Amino acid sequence: MEKNLNIGIVGTGAIGRTHIERINRKLQGAKVTACADANLDFCRSVAEKYGLKVYENGEDMIADDKINAVIVTTLDAFHEEYVLAAIKAGKFVFCEKPLAPEAQACRRIAEAEIAARRQLVQVGFMRRYDPGYRQLKALIESGEYGSPLMLHCAHRNPDAPGFTTDMPVENSMIHEIDVLRWLIGENYISAEVVFPKTTKYAQGALKDPQIMYLTTESGIRIDVESFVNCRYGYDIKCEVVCEEGSLNLPEPANAMVRSKASRMTPICRDWSERFIEAYNVEFQEWINSCRAGVVNGPSAWDGYLGQVAAKAASKARDTQTRIAIKTEPTPDFYKK
Amino acid sequence: MEKNLNIGIVGTGAIGRTHIERINRKLQGAKVTACADANLDFCRSVAEKYGLKVYENGEDMIADDKINAVIVTTLDAFHEEYVLAAIKAGKFVFCEKPLAPEAQACRRIAEAEIAARRQLVQVGFMRRYDPGYRQLKALIESGEYGSPLMLHCAHRNPDAPGFTTDMPVENSMIHEIDVLRWLIGENYISAEVVFPKTTKYAQGALKDPQIMYLTTESGIRIDVESFVNCRYGYDIKCEVVCEEGSLNLPEPANAMVRSKASRMTPICRDWSERFIEAYNVEFQEWINSCRAGVVNGPSAWDGYLGQVAAKAASKARDTQTRIAIKTEPTPDFYKK
Amino acid sequence: MEKNLNIGIVGTGAIGRTHIERINRKLQGAKVTACADANLDFCRSVAEKYGLKVYENGEDMIADDKINAVIVTTLDAFHEEYVLAAIKAGKFVFCEKPLAPEAQACRRIAEAEIAARRQLVQVGFMRRYDPGYRQLKALIESGEYGSPLMLHCAHRNPDAPGFTTDMPVENSMIHEIDVLRWLIGENYISAEVVFPKTTKYAQGALKDPQIMYLTTESGIRIDVESFVNCRYGYDIKCEVVCEEGSLNLPEPANAMVRSKASRMTPICRDWSERFIEAYNVEFQEWINSCRAGVVNGPSAWDGYLGQVAAKAASKARDTQTRIAIKTEPTPDFYKK
Amino acid sequence: MEKNLNIGIVGTGAIGRTHIERINRKLQGAKVTACADANLDFCRSVAEKYGLKVYENGEDMIADDKINAVIVTTLDAFHEEYVLAAIKAGKFVFCEKPLAPEAQACRRIAEAEIAARRQLVQVGFMRRYDPGYRQLKALIESGEYGSPLMLHCAHRNPDAPGFTTDMPVENSMIHEIDVLRWLIGENYISAEVVFPKTTKYAQGALKDPQIMYLTTESGIRIDVESFVNCRYGYDIKCEVVCEEGSLNLPEPANAMVRSKASRMTPICRDWSERFIEAYNVEFQEWINSCRAGVVNGPSAWDGYLGQVAAKAASKARDTQTRIAIKTEPTPDFYKK
Repeated sequence: MEKNLNIGIVGTGAIGRTHIERINRKLQGAKVTACADANLDFCRSVAEKYGLKVYENGEDMIADDKINAVIVTTLDAFHEEYVLAAIKAGKFVFCEKPLAPEAQACRRIAEAEIAARRQLVQVGFMRRYDPGYRQLKALIESGEYGSPLMLHCAHRNPDAPGFTTDMPVENSMIHEIDVLRWLIGENYISAEVVFPKTTKYAQGALKDPQIMYLTTESGIRIDVESFVNCRYGYDIKCEVVCEEGSLNLPEPANAMVRSKASRMTPICRDWSERFIEAYNVEFQEWINSCRAGVVNGPSAWDGYLGQVAAKAASKARDTQTRIAIKTEPTPDFYKK
Repeated sequence: MEKNLNIGIVGTGAIGRTHIERINRKLQGAKVTACADANLDFCRSVAEKYGLKVYENGEDMIADDKINAVIVTTLDAFHEEYVLAAIKAGKFVFCEKPLAPEAQACRRIAEAEIAARRQLVQVGFMRRYDPGYRQLKALIESGEYGSPLMLHCAHRNPDAPGFTTDMPVENSMIHEIDVLRWLIGENYISAEVVFPKTTKYAQGALKDPQIMYLTTESGIRIDVESFVNCRYGYDIKCEVVCEEGSLNLPEPANAMVRSKASRMTPICRDWSERFIEAYNVEFQEWINSCRAGVVNGPSAWDGYLGQVAAKAASKARDTQTRIAIKTEPTPDFYKK
Repeated sequence: MEKNLNIGIVGTGAIGRTHIERINRKLQGAKVTACADANLDFCRSVAEKYGLKVYENGEDMIADDKINAVIVTTLDAFHEEYVLAAIKAGKFVFCEKPLAPEAQACRRIAEAEIAARRQLVQVGFMRRYDPGYRQLKALIESGEYGSPLMLHCAHRNPDAPGFTTDMPVENSMIHEIDVLRWLIGENYISAEVVFPKTTKYAQGALKDPQIMYLTTESGIRIDVESFVNCRYGYDIKCEVVCEEGSLNLPEPANAMVRSKASRMTPICRDWSERFIEAYNVEFQEWINSCRAGVVNGPSAWDGYLGQVAAKAASKARDTQTRIAIKTEPTPDFYKK
Repeated sequence: MEKNLNIGIVGTGAIGRTHIERINRKLQGAKVTACADANLDFCRSVAEKYGLKVYENGEDMIADDKINAVIVTTLDAFHEEYVLAAIKAGKFVFCEKPLAPEAQACRRIAEAEIAARRQLVQVGFMRRYDPGYRQLKALIESGEYGSPLMLHCAHRNPDAPGFTTDMPVENSMIHEIDVLRWLIGENYISAEVVFPKTTKYAQGALKDPQIMYLTTESGIRIDVESFVNCRYGYDIKCEVVCEEGSLNLPEPANAMVRSKASRMTPICRDWSERFIEAYNVEFQEWINSCRAGVVNGPSAWDGYLGQVAAKAASKARDTQTRIAIKTEPTPDFYKK
């Protein structure tokens, strides 16, 4: 069997470090062996902790023949340059969402991939790997319940220090934007964002909660509630209402306690608890597909379409109107 | 203790007959002793079955001194005349929803009540008496969970023979229009109605499902999904998302069976199963309040505001725009 | 329609008063119009509160022609004399459980009924009227799940001031003894009682919890956990494990709240909350059956068999051995 | 970081092969590189499929310096010889349950370990690694709910071809025997086994279901229902009733569907689905602990005590009496 994939990671912040630990201590077939970060001193301390080789800059690491694959977990604004560098170097690259903040930057990445004639880019939309969402997709695809007509979703955090009104769509609901499109297999054609009454726990000028409406090519209507200061926990809801039944995302399996005149089941307190399994599956499948020479997960085109929809939703939020989402036809390169 | 309230019922169709049975066989303090119906022969057969006295027309019955209180269960278009007749005769009157199809007709009824200086009219919005909705109201009013910010509701029927696109708002979601306003204690200021993808089971030109959005004075945003051909059962959902928690309408208490690799709990097959308890409580409390000389339930003003909102939602549906709902200040007469 | 049944109640303690209120304020077809109680002064105060006629002793009230039916809610030791008096007077009599503390006293009552050639006695085993238990019975009788093989039950109170070790079987689990036999349609052939570790909250010498095992004619094995100081609430559990599925008694329908990192649904705090509906149905059906001249509910024979089983279980508890339960064949008089 | 642990597996049947796949394709820090099996031809085919080296007999493989650790998945009767061989060779050994069928064989293994002065043996009781059981243990150990008093458990299979009456205790309930002792931290002092009515689906002379009762040092009473032909699915239940609350093992997280007048959540169809996560965690932690030079999981002493209890329960079943379980004090060697 082949040797481990040697992975270099650029961006050693919190998310990057969880991926290093995940890959090096839990998964098979790969090791993160090198790192780079804008903050060299910090990068050195991380390298020392995990036994990695430090590169003074990401491009050098990406270009090094010893590195087989790349993980990009820098600040969003720098995703594009490192992903392009990986494409140029012919290396598989996993880029945390968003592929790039601007839709055009995502498009440039897709164009670079197409020009290079090799699909190399996967975007970190981990919910596609969550066992619960996978069950929903299987139920939809079974055809047993007819067509989806409406989706009712919610994405709630207990609190969100530092969040501003522009952040829920692109930082939080971007996950729904990708996974719901994947669930129903259709593109969006419009977005709206409305502001319900704001919670007293919203800091400063933050409008929270927010509700985003998306409609699809065949008329499916999706509502996604984002509530980042819900106080009570980290909670993800998804109901797919079909012609013959309603399909519901399961809650995590926690022990139920009868105590104090209640039956109580814990809810996650923090986002990091909820999708551990999804991240593990996501990275193991990415490693496996790199070793098989393919990309099976969310592509650069998915990343591009995600940003197109997110930008439309942001514009809808800022103008308080419905914004049309024009989706280019999927290039043959990305058709499965 | 006083004698039973003698009730005359005008309109002996299906709904009317369930109320006759309910009052005469189950509840205390009243008996339906007389009936009238546009179809005299049919009315006679009903009278014979239940041992009632037949009146050739509703006005005569309402005016008869032997009748203490009136129930109006005629076709909607005739509610106004009988309710006005009851007010004129100084009799308590329970009118099934809608108080009258047109908002102006409702307003005329309220004006007649105010002119008569006696509150006599109660409208049949039974969900206010459902134990589950009453629990929600108590939870909201406890203040323990902060202000409501959003409500997510659904009203699903397995099928709806004969339903046309204009019916969901005024026939079905009228119940949500009343009970949600009662739950949160605020008036609506706007309505919208959107059409998701239509189910293949919708007959003819019916657009089904439909989603109605309502906003309130303080900015609470409400969504109500109406799906009259959902196929799977009769299902009512209501989630009140507050600043510190989410409150959820309970499902009916049914035995759970583990069988065939599933754990399954039955859902109501028909609307008539779901609100039996609510109707019983509604009528017993109405009877009790008539005997105490007061009206405690949904008033003619509530009926009027319900129709104002329903008409705005219908206009929103027909024009596919948001329609403002202007709510007049509650007359002192109706303030509790 | 016939006049109301005139009911006399002997025993005006707490249980008796709830039945007076239930019948006089909620149900149809009857009124409690008279009362008697060993404590005459107390009886007078109750009579004044509810507008009843006082009788200086129960026998006089029972014999009075104006009284059509009798409710016996005295101390257990006095049930026999009043039930026999009702039989002698040819009056329908509802006797709260136990029919009588001693099995032989129950048998005497059955013999008196048989000798009088009129079935007049109903025993207050209200769980047969609980909607949840009725659903279980319908599921079992559908045959869809095969034969019951095992039942796993629990009867938990938050606390039980004054309870002694002999009380759980005859005061608490007597309800399971009756309803489970009714559910599965078979008699018991043995009883055992074991003592798990005792809770620190058990007062004095009380052994709590206790578990009772019953086996039936066809070998069905039943376990009933009694835990009278469970602390957390009033909780009733019943699982019927059949050849092809497991049937589960539903929990009361309460609003679920997501708050403080939990989803929580309230559990009853007190026994009186849990079976309100059952008591209402029980008494309305008893009133209806009296007016129809029959007894449809738990008979004196059911009361006798219940005490036979309870005494066997008590003996099993005291001797810490398995005790056989010999059930006489049901007299034709009691066969339905 | 150290090289991978080289594991040799003796016994290449179904269970053994799932462990080879698990370790070689999913986990970290080890590879199964060699195998042996009584059936040499079959062993060769397995070796070829997984790229392993074949040994003509297990002892040679265990003795080979290249092998660092051993997994024993032979027929139960041969566990002892291979575990003793591993102890003799100073190699860590994971032995699937039972450590050995006979309690004395288990004791010999423990004595050999003690004599070798190195703890090397771990027994495959994977439920200790199931996230749900781990939650229960944490809840018990929090002390927040007081002492456990009773445990109510069930272990149900949809069917069990070839099962005979002696198999449920030692093949099926052996898992409860170990995990419940671990959960509550006490030894058993008695066992009983009773036979409820047998299901019509039990083949031949098989008595199914069976219920095992265990009592512990402090009086905790445990019931375990074994139902191997339950028809409806693979279902594991565990309720720990404590002084201040009841703790309930969670069900797997599956999507809930509203369809056909039910809300339905799937139950596992097969045992292999239910404990996948537990096996993964079990083996990863075993590999990690081998590499750290310790045994952290169920020890040979746990294996011995498990068999002592299982044999007592088997004797209780055969004699239909309660059998005392005498537990020797834990040798210092095994104290943590």
